[in-house]
Amino acid sequence: MITAAVVGASGYTGGELLRLLLGHPEVEVTQITSERLGGRQATTAHPHLRGRTDLLFRPRSELGVADIIFVTLRHGESSRDLDALAARSTTIVDLAADFRLRDSRDYPRWYGWEHPAPQRLHDFVYGVAELHRDELRGTDRIATGGCLATATILGLHPLVAGGLVNLAMPVTVEAKVGSSAAGAQSSAASHHPHRSREMRSFAPTGHRHTAEILQELNLTRVTPGVAFSATAVEAVRGVLVT
Amino acid sequence: MITAAVVGASGYTGGELLRLLLGHPEVEVTQITSERLGGRQATTAHPHLRGRTDLLFRPRSELGVADIIFVTLRHGESSRDLDALAARSTTIVDLAADFRLRDSRDYPRWYGWEHPAPQRLHDFVYGVAELHRDELRGTDRIATGGCLATATILGLHPLVAGGLVNLAMPVTVEAKVGSSAAGAQSSAASHHPHRSREMRSFAPTGHRHTAEILQELNLTRVTPGVAFSATAVEAVRGVLVT
Amino acid sequence: MITAAVVGASGYTGGELLRLLLGHPEVEVTQITSERLGGRQATTAHPHLRGRTDLLFRPRSELGVADIIFVTLRHGESSRDLDALAARSTTIVDLAADFRLRDSRDYPRWYGWEHPAPQRLHDFVYGVAELHRDELRGTDRIATGGCLATATILGLHPLVAGGLVNLAMPVTVEAKVGSSAAGAQSSAASHHPHRSREMRSFAPTGHRHTAEILQELNLTRVTPGVAFSATAVEAVRGVLVT
Amino acid sequence: MITAAVVGASGYTGGELLRLLLGHPEVEVTQITSERLGGRQATTAHPHLRGRTDLLFRPRSELGVADIIFVTLRHGESSRDLDALAARSTTIVDLAADFRLRDSRDYPRWYGWEHPAPQRLHDFVYGVAELHRDELRGTDRIATGGCLATATILGLHPLVAGGLVNLAMPVTVEAKVGSSAAGAQSSAASHHPHRSREMRSFAPTGHRHTAEILQELNLTRVTPGVAFSATAVEAVRGVLVT
Repeated sequence: MITAAVVGASGYTGGELLRLLLGHPEVEVTQITSERLGGRQATTAHPHLRGRTDLLFRPRSELGVADIIFVTLRHGESSRDLDALAARSTTIVDLAADFRLRDSRDYPRWYGWEHPAPQRLHDFVYGVAELHRDELRGTDRIATGGCLATATILGLHPLVAGGLVNLAMPVTVEAKVGSSAAGAQSSAASHHPHRSREMRSFAPTGHRHTAEILQELNLTRVTPGVAFSATAVEAVRGVLVT
Repeated sequence: MITAAVVGASGYTGGELLRLLLGHPEVEVTQITSERLGGRQATTAHPHLRGRTDLLFRPRSELGVADIIFVTLRHGESSRDLDALAARSTTIVDLAADFRLRDSRDYPRWYGWEHPAPQRLHDFVYGVAELHRDELRGTDRIATGGCLATATILGLHPLVAGGLVNLAMPVTVEAKVGSSAAGAQSSAASHHPHRSREMRSFAPTGHRHTAEILQELNLTRVTPGVAFSATAVEAVRGVLVT
Repeated sequence: MITAAVVGASGYTGGELLRLLLGHPEVEVTQITSERLGGRQATTAHPHLRGRTDLLFRPRSELGVADIIFVTLRHGESSRDLDALAARSTTIVDLAADFRLRDSRDYPRWYGWEHPAPQRLHDFVYGVAELHRDELRGTDRIATGGCLATATILGLHPLVAGGLVNLAMPVTVEAKVGSSAAGAQSSAASHHPHRSREMRSFAPTGHRHTAEILQELNLTRVTPGVAFSATAVEAVRGVLVT
Repeated sequence: MITAAVVGASGYTGGELLRLLLGHPEVEVTQITSERLGGRQATTAHPHLRGRTDLLFRPRSELGVADIIFVTLRHGESSRDLDALAARSTTIVDLAADFRLRDSRDYPRWYGWEHPAPQRLHDFVYGVAELHRDELRGTDRIATGGCLATATILGLHPLVAGGLVNLAMPVTVEAKVGSSAAGAQSSAASHHPHRSREMRSFAPTGHRHTAEILQELNLTRVTPGVAFSATAVEAVRGVLVT
């Protein structure tokens, strides 16, 4: 039995991850952290887990050791906290963007901040098994892919790898996405009277996932590369990439 | 031309009211107030009014005189501020609940606060024209009805007034309502991933509009009276009362 | 291993039933019938079963023996066909309304047709386990409850049985329901541009499920009994009963 | 006052057109036709017009003269019927695709049928006023643009005409569209349980509106031209083109 901790487990990513881990026959989730919900039941944030767990959220300062730590913090947090996390587990899976990109210059460009631990970027394997199955078997550092990036990469990789794509032209990608992608915190953009039935081009250019797509398709040095846009449509879950 | 001011005009009620007033051939809207959006364009809060008005929100402290003042503040504000409003206009139309109920004891019972100006409650006419047309013509104080209350009263009043309802049994009312009824401020309850496709019995008993319904149907002293429940369904606008 | 046949398996009820049966460790589904889709794959009608079954629809005339036959035909069909079905299996579970009501006079009243086999009505047990667990164990004829009826009965039965309901007044039930309740055949009423965001009182009185509710709550001879109404709301699946 | 007839007025296009015409101060709608609804009220098909018209649908065979005839038949009908229509009015506005394309070879290619009156194609002006305002003033034959085509053309035309688009690369267009675009007739594709919340790439290539877009942007002889795709999303009305 492998013991697992989930750091920052109160969001939607954490809730789905917990659901999967709680159903895994060889994993025991032993710790979950949340600064906001410390001391409360996991089911406070994730009512769909009622009857499946009695875990309580704890503040991250109380995190103990585990065989594997999953990190579902906001972008920019895990890279500042990597040493503390690594002190508690040999194996770290980061579900945020902090270790997805191998070129540290991509962080100021796409995310607007300098990476605090650029020397660690090459320790991580990009967590899409269809592309990196063998590397994933041998690593103890995994950075899972972004939602729109994963959908795009899975669709395009066979075509690009097979030489079926004319790279003299932009590979144009239009992604449709539901409201849960923006996370569990309410905001004006997620206010139901506004978000409902929305068709809104929220990232016609410059979406951060473009960086992952270019990297994983080996198009970072190819011009014109990828033209990626993203549109909010009426849905809670789900992504469709055209 | 009648000059009109709208106090607290940044919410959904204010936005709809503005839309109607801007289209009225005998009304000129001269002032709109908002504490939060003071100095900003009306269209910041109400983009559907682009091209129809150049009005700027002002703080309520700058409110000047007008022939008529419409008040779309939160429940409990206009009753505390009535004198200041009355100093600026002879005619006041309140769209909140502060002057809908004639019996001051209903406020602690249904709203949880003592009414600060109970002697003024009888100055106001309940603003449903189908029931109070003549009184509305002669008054300069109007309290418009609540959304679910108005829908209920319009449906039931002809039946109750006509003696077609067996009042020995409860008049049972189930109201379905969209998300805009909860107002323009985002919250966990209005977060799209949760609110979307919701069928949620948010007020199986005890809904505040019950008080208006009882009053306007003259059932306040009738037992068992009205059994009113309210359910959130997937919609932005609209109410259906069964 | 129990062999099961599903008669009329191309609709939504049949699709859900198949999904459950295919996941049952002690059941083998050996036959499915459909007049319209004879010779086609189960997955033609039920794409969510891809990878889980290779069954082909057959016309009902080719139905062979099975340990248990589930019938998901339209209301009025299984009661005309009961002998043919009974010749192929000792155990019959009917998911339509044909054997839900014990009093044959209820069929002309609520369904508009005379029951063709009234003497068989008492052979069937109403298939809500919370009320009839022991009888269900001992029977080989089961009539499962209607969707809105089951939701209503499960909510009200403990209260009525416990004597907590004042039966001198009507027990008022308002049911909200999604579009899949109307079945898999497209129609003007299910046309998305019309059905989308609908709040429509499609059965303010006279809904057929009232008969089941009265029967199962033992209120058939109680006046005023149950006032049941049903409203279509924006949803595909799901029922909420107030 | 101009008299207007609407041929094939029972669909969604006809309903919107009627709404606009009934509100036009210089137009009187004198005739509406429908084969299916002959003898019935306009409001049978278009309940939103209640109180605004008493018109009855008539079969097309009874069509009389009018100053202007609007044709909202299915694609392929008006071109077979043009002489009969022209005998009843000098001015014809066709809302279907029959006269949108100037090159008759585009009909077999994009629509799958030979055009029955290719010599008439040059009589018609493409009805997007932003591009053809002067021609529209002088013509008595107008073919209005398709929905997705019009949205695309209005967005791209200023850029293409201004030389801002690199035509060595494909102009990539991804259109999102609601369910009313498929018309007023119910079908399996518009069945609410299936269509609801859909994100479906129904025309990844080969959409018929591509022909109009190429023509109006003057890109018919440009390679690679336009890569147009269309996706159904959850909405009734509305188009968003990326």
